[in-house]
Amino acid sequence: MLGARVTTQRFAQTSRSTPLKALLPALPGHAHCGDYTSGGGSLHSAFRKASPALALGLHAWTRATRLRGVRRFATAEGNSGGMKAVTVSKYGDATQVMEITDVEKPAPAAGQVLVKNMAIATNPIDYKAAAGVLAPGAEAPDKRLIVGWDCAGVVEKAGEGVTDFQAGDNVWFAGDITKDGCFAEYTAIDARLISKKPESMSFEDAAALPLTFQTAWEGLVEQMNVQKGKTIFVLNGAGGLGSIVIQLAKHLGLTVIASASREETVSWCKKMGADHIINHRNELKSQLAEVGYPTVDYLFNAHENDRLGELIQLLSVDGKIAITFNASREHLETVDFQTMWMKRQSLVHTFMFGRAMFDANPEMVGGVMASCAKLVDSGIIKSTATTKFKSLTEIKEAIKVQMSGKAMGKIVLTV
Amino acid sequence: MLGARVTTQRFAQTSRSTPLKALLPALPGHAHCGDYTSGGGSLHSAFRKASPALALGLHAWTRATRLRGVRRFATAEGNSGGMKAVTVSKYGDATQVMEITDVEKPAPAAGQVLVKNMAIATNPIDYKAAAGVLAPGAEAPDKRLIVGWDCAGVVEKAGEGVTDFQAGDNVWFAGDITKDGCFAEYTAIDARLISKKPESMSFEDAAALPLTFQTAWEGLVEQMNVQKGKTIFVLNGAGGLGSIVIQLAKHLGLTVIASASREETVSWCKKMGADHIINHRNELKSQLAEVGYPTVDYLFNAHENDRLGELIQLLSVDGKIAITFNASREHLETVDFQTMWMKRQSLVHTFMFGRAMFDANPEMVGGVMASCAKLVDSGIIKSTATTKFKSLTEIKEAIKVQMSGKAMGKIVLTV
Repeated sequence: MLGARVTTQRFAQTSRSTPLKALLPALPGHAHCGDYTSGGGSLHSAFRKASPALALGLHAWTRATRLRGVRRFATAEGNSGGMKAVTVSKYGDATQVMEITDVEKPAPAAGQVLVKNMAIATNPIDYKAAAGVLAPGAEAPDKRLIVGWDCAGVVEKAGEGVTDFQAGDNVWFAGDITKDGCFAEYTAIDARLISKKPESMSFEDAAALPLTFQTAWEGLVEQMNVQKGKTIFVLNGAGGLGSIVIQLAKHLGLTVIASASREETVSWCKKMGADHIINHRNELKSQLAEVGYPTVDYLFNAHENDRLGELIQLLSVDGKIAITFNASREHLETVDFQTMWMKRQSLVHTFMFGRAMFDANPEMVGGVMASCAKLVDSGIIKSTATTKFKSLTEIKEAIKVQMSGKAMGKIVLTV
Repeated sequence: MLGARVTTQRFAQTSRSTPLKALLPALPGHAHCGDYTSGGGSLHSAFRKASPALALGLHAWTRATRLRGVRRFATAEGNSGGMKAVTVSKYGDATQVMEITDVEKPAPAAGQVLVKNMAIATNPIDYKAAAGVLAPGAEAPDKRLIVGWDCAGVVEKAGEGVTDFQAGDNVWFAGDITKDGCFAEYTAIDARLISKKPESMSFEDAAALPLTFQTAWEGLVEQMNVQKGKTIFVLNGAGGLGSIVIQLAKHLGLTVIASASREETVSWCKKMGADHIINHRNELKSQLAEVGYPTVDYLFNAHENDRLGELIQLLSVDGKIAITFNASREHLETVDFQTMWMKRQSLVHTFMFGRAMFDANPEMVGGVMASCAKLVDSGIIKSTATTKFKSLTEIKEAIKVQMSGKAMGKIVLTV
């Protein structure tokens, strides 16, 4: 636990003045890492290429949400004392620019709850946000940025108008990417985005699930509307996202083929419930055929889109592919849209933060978290946490693992 | 009715040797015409640009289906006498290369029925096929091509193994684009692709529906899985496809905004059931807002994809767009995929011929036709036939209307 008196740790000098465009290509990590990039190689360059596009997109919504006044919960600070938080005051390499500082403890605005965070989990968005993709072109945030969007904790206080949560409730959430994250002792969060956490699971194991479960649910249930008895291929099955996609797809009655490339990640995918494993270091189509599925009904790309064209060729007639990151022009040029048309195939996008960002039924986010809690307490969904750190002060080590491209499942820290 | 002794009409000399690439840009028409292009203008060029891509795609499946041996019903000819048919023996402008000739009457192979065609309807695919898009690079078909893929008729004989249809049954179908079409006195067709025609509707009114209803059903039900109470925008509402999309969308409980630009097409869209009409000659977004829908949940593009980027910007978060033609590179460059990703939007393709072409549950085609017949006999779906010719010998005039870009609803000919 991070006590109130833990010494502030500064991981790096933050006085450097490095332009964003110089920082982005230097980022070593992948999204939803898994073992996809262990060993390095040509796939490594995909994230570098995708990032500027991602940055532009995030810039677009930042403007859009500002214009639409979505930032209506301007959390009050300063009236409840201080707290420790992982902050970024200069964009750059996360292992260098993240620091633990004293900030003002937020107070819950109307519609929010104040949560005492017990455990948090890392995601690729953490180091991307630290690198400045949420504010392309800027060298530093307007005020310090608190990163982190995966959390389990205890409600300390419910804000005005909140009736479904009260002090003492154990809750979990991914949160809102347009606001301060959860790598801190406390987070003030829109009550529509949270639910009670599973009773049968520790805070640490629970913190691993919100962001990735939301994404898996959105892709499988809301966007692809998968049908029992069909087949899905999950690229990068051992990553944080892939691990939960496998579990949920199995629960929904699909035959699941996942990809992994190392002995331990192959075992992990089997543990998550995958029926067949193929190696994403090799050509995919022939391997799918070898395990009995020349084509698949659905495809969940739990990775960047550098192999988009190859992936779509794995789809059956009427097949659907869910992608979790923006498809760049370069990615799209690999796709044979003529064949997609004749084979009646669909391209669907998942972006779990979209509901809060665009005020598009954000209460459904809390609903999905509640569904997940039930699935956990029923023994259907297991935690994907594999790597645990005992204190938020170890954030630098945790982020290093996240950025290594060798993470399997999720990395969790006790706050 | 086209009697057995009607004089063969030749609409054009077919001895010219015009290369395909020279013919394609000269095509004047649009798909699913409606009034979209009346008055001509810049939209006119879209089809010309899209056609080479379409041609390449169709070439791809032609090869694919040949390789996969889908052409298993090699209809026997010559053992049942002769018949009149609209044939093409040299690719080119449909009004010039289509001719009525005597060909051998087909006999039903195993799994097929032989249908005496009573009425047929035109579609853009007719003049595209006559121009050679089904065999890009070729100047003439290997043997004469019989065009036409919308028909209502009477079963004359059931082939081996066909148990659900018998001589005397009134049936309807769009057919199989890899085989001879229905602009003829008889068609031998896979029994899985047909159903009984509606009892309450004439052959002429029925012939207007199969191809477009299949496409509307595929887009609304199978691909977009539209939900009651949501909103849809139908671009080119008065065309053959748009007219049936409006009706089916209303039946499925959607609020329907359709586009039309002339007084008569506006009235027609209202008759089809549209709740609101906007003018596709003007910018769309502000007009949608004016009728109360700044964004829509679904969009059915019953037209080429030259405005794809503009259309996708009309979609809500979680919105879906169904397109009915291949999206070319040029079309795709107009799309902001970053915003599509963040708004969690889907791009779905409809191609009703895909089921037969790729042997992907072709029996569902017959099932959809049966559903349509029930909807017609329940008074829910009306015929979209607007223009009727009394004889197949008038095919040249009918195709001229189809190619004019001013067709409203469908053009039907009594055989």
